[in-house]
Amino acid sequence: MTGGADNVYDSLERIFHEPNRLAIMSALCGAGRAGLTFGELKEACALTDGNLNRHLKVLEEADAVRVEKEFVGRKPRTTVFLSTEGAKRFNDYLEALAEVLRKAQEAMPAVSRAQPAPPAARRAHG
Amino acid sequence: MTGGADNVYDSLERIFHEPNRLAIMSALCGAGRAGLTFGELKEACALTDGNLNRHLKVLEEADAVRVEKEFVGRKPRTTVFLSTEGAKRFNDYLEALAEVLRKAQEAMPAVSRAQPAPPAARRAHG
Repeated sequence: MTGGADNVYDSLERIFHEPNRLAIMSALCGAGRAGLTFGELKEACALTDGNLNRHLKVLEEADAVRVEKEFVGRKPRTTVFLSTEGAKRFNDYLEALAEVLRKAQEAMPAVSRAQPAPPAARRAHG
Repeated sequence: MTGGADNVYDSLERIFHEPNRLAIMSALCGAGRAGLTFGELKEACALTDGNLNRHLKVLEEADAVRVEKEFVGRKPRTTVFLSTEGAKRFNDYLEALAEVLRKAQEAMPAVSRAQPAPPAARRAHG
């Protein structure tokens, strides 16, 4: 990479950028310290068991979330928590994302400016 | 997918969500109708020839950009333009991204709220 002014794109942490993991992290942020059970998270993110498991594994291996398994009576219960480190890094990711979005939105008007003036506007000068 | 309130994540168009393609689309938006040559785009996005070619192929196949090759004297020149359809869809993507970001940023304070009050604040009540 040659770097330069556009490195803000490199600072988008890829583990959080995947849309389903973005949804998971966002839901866990909203839950605070209580965390969310596997079932709650599955519903909040509209994911299948398999997909949620797969994404949680990626996030757990990156130390972004903590997964606790316990028995409530004879039923197993899985609860997922945002780690302190995960919250910090997700916050950094959101800041980078906001910057990327700001740049793109600033660039966007150039597209409309480049369109020819509508016929009505041109007639007004004729 | 069971859908529900969180489908905003599904509306993040994946071809634009990849960070390097986000950089390419953003640079092309800023260039307006004139487009950007391959070299300009490569520099703006800090990409290698191979990577830029690969991403442009994905964007071209999705009709998001138009790639024109011409000879200037005896030298070939490649210019890349945002298509009208591409500009529209990228704008929709940015709107979805802004919504995802807003939701995540709203959820974020819950993490700090969930922290125990700092000792100084607790002492103030003692």
